Amino acid sequence: MSRSIDLAVIPGDGIGKEVVAQGLKVLEAVLPQDVKLETKHYDLGAGRWHRTGETLPDEELEALKAHDAILLGAIGDPSVPSGVLERGLLLKLRFAFDHYVNLRPSRLFPNTSSPLAGDPSIDFVVVREGTEGPYTGNGGSLRTGTPAEVATEVSLNTAYGVERVVRDAYERADARPRKKLTLVHKNNVLVYAGHMWKNIFDRVGREYPEVTTDYLHVDAATIFLVTQPERFDVIVTDNLFGDILTDLAAAVSGGIGIAASANINPDGTFPSMFEPVHGSAPDIAGQGKADPTATVLSVVLLLRHLGFDAEATAVEEAVAADLTERDGTPRTTDEIGDALAVRVAG
Amino acid sequence: MSRSIDLAVIPGDGIGKEVVAQGLKVLEAVLPQDVKLETKHYDLGAGRWHRTGETLPDEELEALKAHDAILLGAIGDPSVPSGVLERGLLLKLRFAFDHYVNLRPSRLFPNTSSPLAGDPSIDFVVVREGTEGPYTGNGGSLRTGTPAEVATEVSLNTAYGVERVVRDAYERADARPRKKLTLVHKNNVLVYAGHMWKNIFDRVGREYPEVTTDYLHVDAATIFLVTQPERFDVIVTDNLFGDILTDLAAAVSGGIGIAASANINPDGTFPSMFEPVHGSAPDIAGQGKADPTATVLSVVLLLRHLGFDAEATAVEEAVAADLTERDGTPRTTDEIGDALAVRVAG
Ligand SMILES: CC(C)[C@H](C(=O)O)[C@@H](O)C(=O)O
Ligand SMILES: CC(C)[C@H](C(=O)O)[C@@H](O)C(=O)O
Repeated sequence: MSRSIDLAVIPGDGIGKEVVAQGLKVLEAVLPQDVKLETKHYDLGAGRWHRTGETLPDEELEALKAHDAILLGAIGDPSVPSGVLERGLLLKLRFAFDHYVNLRPSRLFPNTSSPLAGDPSIDFVVVREGTEGPYTGNGGSLRTGTPAEVATEVSLNTAYGVERVVRDAYERADARPRKKLTLVHKNNVLVYAGHMWKNIFDRVGREYPEVTTDYLHVDAATIFLVTQPERFDVIVTDNLFGDILTDLAAAVSGGIGIAASANINPDGTFPSMFEPVHGSAPDIAGQGKADPTATVLSVVLLLRHLGFDAEATAVEEAVAADLTERDGTPRTTDEIGDALAVRVAG
Repeated sequence: MSRSIDLAVIPGDGIGKEVVAQGLKVLEAVLPQDVKLETKHYDLGAGRWHRTGETLPDEELEALKAHDAILLGAIGDPSVPSGVLERGLLLKLRFAFDHYVNLRPSRLFPNTSSPLAGDPSIDFVVVREGTEGPYTGNGGSLRTGTPAEVATEVSLNTAYGVERVVRDAYERADARPRKKLTLVHKNNVLVYAGHMWKNIFDRVGREYPEVTTDYLHVDAATIFLVTQPERFDVIVTDNLFGDILTDLAAAVSGGIGIAASANINPDGTFPSMFEPVHGSAPDIAGQGKADPTATVLSVVLLLRHLGFDAEATAVEEAVAADLTERDGTPRTTDEIGDALAVRVAG
């Protein structure tokens, strides 16, 4: 286990800065004295783009590579044309650092508000593919802006890319008590990619005889997420379906204010990146209203990824205890961060 | 207004046959004496495919063209490889008959069970594009079944196809009391298709100054569907996002047992097709357990499409009254159909 952490921090835009500050506060508080935490902040996002026109220059991409991990707040602002920062910064990082496992756990903590009636029990994790599918940026537009325009989006899927993420999902399912893995796709319509996913899913599954498997079309999966969320243990799915399902999953299990995510390069060739699922929420930025819990839970994933299991568990338990105790009382971003830091240090 | 209806009926598979019988029963009961209803049944679906290997022969496609409208139950069975009947029959009909408006209303009727807490008020309609996007069947697979396989899915979008469905959605929004239209896409990632959709949406919107507009990424839209469904009035979206959102919408507003849909060719060049959103549910087929309400509400859309407005309203009110009265008491498929037929005839 490494006794030092060299962390790149990309606070980004809007509430990103505020929640990342709390995430770091809790991280510092939980680490044992002998672990050296070094952080380097990178000024990337809407502000930088407005000032310089840059999204992610090569030197910074190169510099980021050298860190053990990246903590990211949120990227995006309505003043920047849609797609510029997403493609030029966030997705560029995920693709350049081969973050093929996008891990998004959903757990209904005590006293969090779910829009679902009757307190369902929710505890599953989505393993979303992060480097392929409709996210590759392939496609184009012909006769743009004219009545004869044609626009395409190409979903690229490779056996190489699918097998590695499917295998990762089986490993995770096998390590959980319920050992259940659900593949979500739309193989009755997207027959080329869908059948490849399903065939690989079935083939790899033979190596994990203890894992129970299930397949759902993405439309049906959204139904079960709201009517029977307890049905799910581990879900594996493609990049776009994973995007959609994890926002829905966040909404039904405590809201986007507590949904964490990890962009993992399991091979360890590149630093993995940890970020809340939520966006930069410019409407509430700078007001101390943002809930830093999603970032703190992303720090849990970061700690676990770097081998600090006891510390990860301590932070996760602190969040659960904090949510139980605060019982919905409104608090500022800072107050929540402070309370969690005190708890894990204590 | 036409005083006769020449209806093609495709009961299809599983519960399709059972629910279609009830839909026809209610249709017959509501039509005035002087309206002649002629029906012709087409044997298409899993059974036919197993017997003959055919999904939709050219002669039948040709014959179907001659009808005023099509009532379809449900297509599909686990014994048929995924994609065969979807691509070869259901989507073939939607594409061949240029059903570019896939209309799916969501309304929370009294006494229907929503998984959402706190009785939200839900009354919106999704206008889903039906002839383009990732549903065109474009794409392919190279080195299929090998570790070097590559599979693509190509989403095809044209200004021609987008503008006509967007215009239809503005018309519908303009005709509703709230006059609100939300475009759902993912234009921060699918930048080619997404920007074309957004530009056309904005441009056509200038012709509808009374309609309030909104844009949501598809992931965010799923959140609002469960946390603030009252936010929506009319939603317009692409084929795949529409598929996903309408299943979720059905789940939060009374369940898939009452979700209706219409595949409309607004130009009237081809017959429009009416079908419940649910599938063939082989697990409960033949047991009289299927709820025919979704089919009956699809008959409402059919009646309205053919200009029988008073009759459409009568059936819709009968469904609302029936749901209020039965208050969740379980009844068979037949019993529900009978009750509705009696009501509309009365
Ligand atoms: C901002 C956007 C590019 C991103 C995505 O679609 O992956 C976000 O929605 C997410 O889920 O992290
Ligand atoms: C069966 C399938 C091809 C179809 C679709 O994806 O359109 C269904 O899910 C629907 O929504 O009508």
